Amino acid sequence: MSFFLPVLLGTAREGRRSEAVAQFVLEQVAQLKGVETLLVDARDYRIRGTDDTETTRLEKRFAKIVTEADGFIIVSLEYNHSFPGELKMMLDMADDEYAGKPVGICGVSSGGMGGVRMVEQLRLVTITLGMVPISSAMYFSNVEKLFDAEGVLLDQKFVTRLKPFFHELLWYVEALKAQRKKTPLSLD
Amino acid sequence: MSFFLPVLLGTAREGRRSEAVAQFVLEQVAQLKGVETLLVDARDYRIRGTDDTETTRLEKRFAKIVTEADGFIIVSLEYNHSFPGELKMMLDMADDEYAGKPVGICGVSSGGMGGVRMVEQLRLVTITLGMVPISSAMYFSNVEKLFDAEGVLLDQKFVTRLKPFFHELLWYVEALKAQRKKTPLSLD
Amino acid sequence: MSFFLPVLLGTAREGRRSEAVAQFVLEQVAQLKGVETLLVDARDYRIRGTDDTETTRLEKRFAKIVTEADGFIIVSLEYNHSFPGELKMMLDMADDEYAGKPVGICGVSSGGMGGVRMVEQLRLVTITLGMVPISSAMYFSNVEKLFDAEGVLLDQKFVTRLKPFFHELLWYVEALKAQRKKTPLSLD
Amino acid sequence: MSFFLPVLLGTAREGRRSEAVAQFVLEQVAQLKGVETLLVDARDYRIRGTDDTETTRLEKRFAKIVTEADGFIIVSLEYNHSFPGELKMMLDMADDEYAGKPVGICGVSSGGMGGVRMVEQLRLVTITLGMVPISSAMYFSNVEKLFDAEGVLLDQKFVTRLKPFFHELLWYVEALKAQRKKTPLSLD
Repeated sequence: MSFFLPVLLGTAREGRRSEAVAQFVLEQVAQLKGVETLLVDARDYRIRGTDDTETTRLEKRFAKIVTEADGFIIVSLEYNHSFPGELKMMLDMADDEYAGKPVGICGVSSGGMGGVRMVEQLRLVTITLGMVPISSAMYFSNVEKLFDAEGVLLDQKFVTRLKPFFHELLWYVEALKAQRKKTPLSLD
Repeated sequence: MSFFLPVLLGTAREGRRSEAVAQFVLEQVAQLKGVETLLVDARDYRIRGTDDTETTRLEKRFAKIVTEADGFIIVSLEYNHSFPGELKMMLDMADDEYAGKPVGICGVSSGGMGGVRMVEQLRLVTITLGMVPISSAMYFSNVEKLFDAEGVLLDQKFVTRLKPFFHELLWYVEALKAQRKKTPLSLD
Repeated sequence: MSFFLPVLLGTAREGRRSEAVAQFVLEQVAQLKGVETLLVDARDYRIRGTDDTETTRLEKRFAKIVTEADGFIIVSLEYNHSFPGELKMMLDMADDEYAGKPVGICGVSSGGMGGVRMVEQLRLVTITLGMVPISSAMYFSNVEKLFDAEGVLLDQKFVTRLKPFFHELLWYVEALKAQRKKTPLSLD
Repeated sequence: MSFFLPVLLGTAREGRRSEAVAQFVLEQVAQLKGVETLLVDARDYRIRGTDDTETTRLEKRFAKIVTEADGFIIVSLEYNHSFPGELKMMLDMADDEYAGKPVGICGVSSGGMGGVRMVEQLRLVTITLGMVPISSAMYFSNVEKLFDAEGVLLDQKFVTRLKPFFHELLWYVEALKAQRKKTPLSLD
């Protein structure tokens, strides 16, 4: 079996520091055997106004990715103890397409808590959407000091930490893809 | 003492049903003695792109309202067990200006739970911003059936329910405005 | 495959109204084909003091049930927007034994919100413990009026509502038991 | 005005590491001008069985302290991303007596996150109880290394960190005590 695990980047702000984290995670996912990935950037899914045609086009594009995905990795900074609004707006663009698919969350913060409160609030949203939040999470604290000017990761311990995170995620990806093939999951 | 209590409308979507709720709450607030109010609409604070000038202009406008406010009422629909992204983006536009000011939250939902999960997640965000979430909350369930085609409220029990909600909010508004005058509150 | 799905009753208080709900759910689980169940009562797992021998005995007994379980149903009243302390103390008695096992939560409340805030807080605890909280939940509002004096359910709509709840739970129970047999799941 | 600010210790377990934190915080509170304090230990409020007389006696004792308090400091370890069950059971013993009184929370953890998830879940409970959770919080990470064998704090930075925490708490204590004297606060 091969799997498609897109990496969702949750912030759209100018000067966002979580982009380097998302790039690092994306590279690591791409090295997993039998796994394909893609960066899905909240910047590309901003709803700019009340133009229904444009909104519908973005929703269709996003829902298509969610339909094809076997699981998700979300990378996001924490603002004010929760997720960025643009991440929530992007996630709200799909619905049934998430059902029965696992998700691993990577918190990012300028401070020392690694976005842990964002991770908790986001887990509740993902459950509602029908995703399965895994027990492991990644916490990228003090993000300003984690990468050099070229965006190269300075602390290799995150490579090590990703291993059990990926291991758990893939355990669920495999189990649930097999089950979805056998019996489609429909949620109310 | 007179107080300024803006009503923040948290959703920007086309066809939003929480607008009628916000209008109803606004009218009720406007009838309180010594209270001035204003509708602050998330639609007017959407960040459309990466144009820093435009974003800065919106942030300044929003922060000015927060500075002048003595407390807040937030009216918002619940999407997927949390707040709309555009509400979070608007709230993230100010910072120290919220310190020591109370907030009452009105949840809105199509279903029967009145947005109660949104209220809980939002309370945590408001604490972080330095606001004081009051213990009471309003829950507008089954919003599609609450108003007639002209936006007139069909169920007068909400007028009654608003009384203790306003009472608690004003109790804090009065106490904390007096204290802020005596000793400015600075948070880290 | 046959499955063992214990029903955990989360409150130990005198006069607890959630007991009738737990009995009703237990009877319905017992009628599922290939499923065995058991009522696990928080009353039987109260830590009364600092007697380590007694505590260790209770922990072993509880951990044995968790080890044998293929999934869980938790029935609990909401107190003050969260779970009863005795439910948390019981859940804290096991650890790795929960890994990779789904859980469905049934909220109970005297008021109209069906324990929905307890469900949300508890979901975060279950993720940490390694369980998989399903997207569906049951909400038993106004519990005082739901059963007659003999504990017989007065509103049959809950029988209907349990069907998709059980359907989703069993979907995960089946998928994850197969996967655990293939590859044991170890969490850090 | 003088104030009574009890320190609530939230865990009752054998070998609890948060006791040293509570003692440290208690000493620091005791040094504040015009403030009296008291250690309120969850161990002394355990409900051991279904003996109503004993339970009622404990509830009355606890409610009396809450009635007399002008605000609260809660010190608690985080277990499984939430509060210990015995803390919840103790807090559930009072009700209206909390209304309009501020609370500051000190999280404690063996790991590096300082109990931050417990703080978030607990804040929602305290709001429901009518307390006012302040925006600041204290996070005692890696508690095993924070004190020497005699329970003496090894890292003096916590003395410094307590200053703004106490400052904010007392700001609310003063404001809300004055307001409660002027107008009693009754919540539904």
